[in-house]
Amino acid sequence: MKDHTVTAFDIELKQLADSVLDMGRLARQSCTLAAASLSERGPGLAGEVKAIDAQVDGLQRTIEEAGILLIARRQPVAFDLREVVCALRIANDLERIGDLASNIAQRAAVLESTAAPQPLTAGLESLSVLVIERLDEALEIFTQRNAARAAEIWASDVSVDDLYTSIFRGILTYMMEDPRHISACAQLVFVGKNLERIGDHVSNIAESVYYAATGEQLDETRRTGERSAEVEAITAG
Amino acid sequence: MKDHTVTAFDIELKQLADSVLDMGRLARQSCTLAAASLSERGPGLAGEVKAIDAQVDGLQRTIEEAGILLIARRQPVAFDLREVVCALRIANDLERIGDLASNIAQRAAVLESTAAPQPLTAGLESLSVLVIERLDEALEIFTQRNAARAAEIWASDVSVDDLYTSIFRGILTYMMEDPRHISACAQLVFVGKNLERIGDHVSNIAESVYYAATGEQLDETRRTGERSAEVEAITAG
Repeated sequence: MKDHTVTAFDIELKQLADSVLDMGRLARQSCTLAAASLSERGPGLAGEVKAIDAQVDGLQRTIEEAGILLIARRQPVAFDLREVVCALRIANDLERIGDLASNIAQRAAVLESTAAPQPLTAGLESLSVLVIERLDEALEIFTQRNAARAAEIWASDVSVDDLYTSIFRGILTYMMEDPRHISACAQLVFVGKNLERIGDHVSNIAESVYYAATGEQLDETRRTGERSAEVEAITAG
Repeated sequence: MKDHTVTAFDIELKQLADSVLDMGRLARQSCTLAAASLSERGPGLAGEVKAIDAQVDGLQRTIEEAGILLIARRQPVAFDLREVVCALRIANDLERIGDLASNIAQRAAVLESTAAPQPLTAGLESLSVLVIERLDEALEIFTQRNAARAAEIWASDVSVDDLYTSIFRGILTYMMEDPRHISACAQLVFVGKNLERIGDHVSNIAESVYYAATGEQLDETRRTGERSAEVEAITAG
């Protein structure tokens, strides 16, 4: 009887994790299209990302419902319960990633191509490449339940923050040099911030994997190190 | 036996809701201090908001744990289950509100008082007043489980979006008129955006109350109406 219950739980948990991975693939696709929208502008890509985002949102609701029913019906404890909570948390982060990607594509669509300086969009594309690589790694460690690599990915979010901070400063310099760039640059500031926030959600995913595997939370104080109040303000929130 | 179970569930649910309200009061206090930091600058308030934010984060973890245990132990269905899910979702939104308030205070702390034009900070203070009023209403309807008012609060988020859009455009105009304002104005753009995002989380709280009371989701298409792609881009994400 015990074995039967455990197996049924395992099957349902596997289905839940598979749905999270489906959601992860869709969220990743949104990020790739959002990054592409920085060089190929026009409303087309924004519509495509929005359509994927609707699917991501739908999956999140399905996962939340399935996860809660799984907890109610199987009453998992300890490791098993953490696995379900981990799936729910990751679905939450992927839903936010989908929203942020959709917003990037919306902002890119309203940029006039002449007004967005190419070196800035190139910088943002590098940031998107870094963030998407990290998303791939986070989804991989979720599949492998690899706590050690989860802690590494989580700790290396500073690489995203550093690149974003330098891009942010570059955008301000462009604004100061030529006020005609200000409107376009203001949109690019948000594109950069959204990419940095996607990076934060990737870190959260790594944090959830670590928690599921170990039952412990990663210690925030170990990560940030010494930073100026200005950099703290730029990269937080 | 049935009555005993129902009563135990009701007591635990009441405790959960009380913790959510405690969290709401702390998040509100963070917002008030963050708004004050726009006129009384310096690192003091930022530290205070950060300390409150740590309490808010702690309460969120406690509520998540208590809510999940409540689902596992009592296996609520229908209305009762939605009540627990509603509490978990609201705790999630309040945690984000705490983060955003903390970031506003951090950004305000690094502004040089001479570089932040007073009309802009005054506009942001008006936006913060509107957002805090709405947070108060959302917490009140959570206490009353008032679905009709929840739908109203949710639908009237456009008032926050409209004020934010006009402030955003005002900030860009200041930047164009005097490039010396650009650094400070870039911080103010984020302060505005964070207030607008707090407004979005307030709407989410209203949406969760509506869902708990009715079992239905509010229909996004009924709210936004006709907007330009530019305004969509400014207010989304």
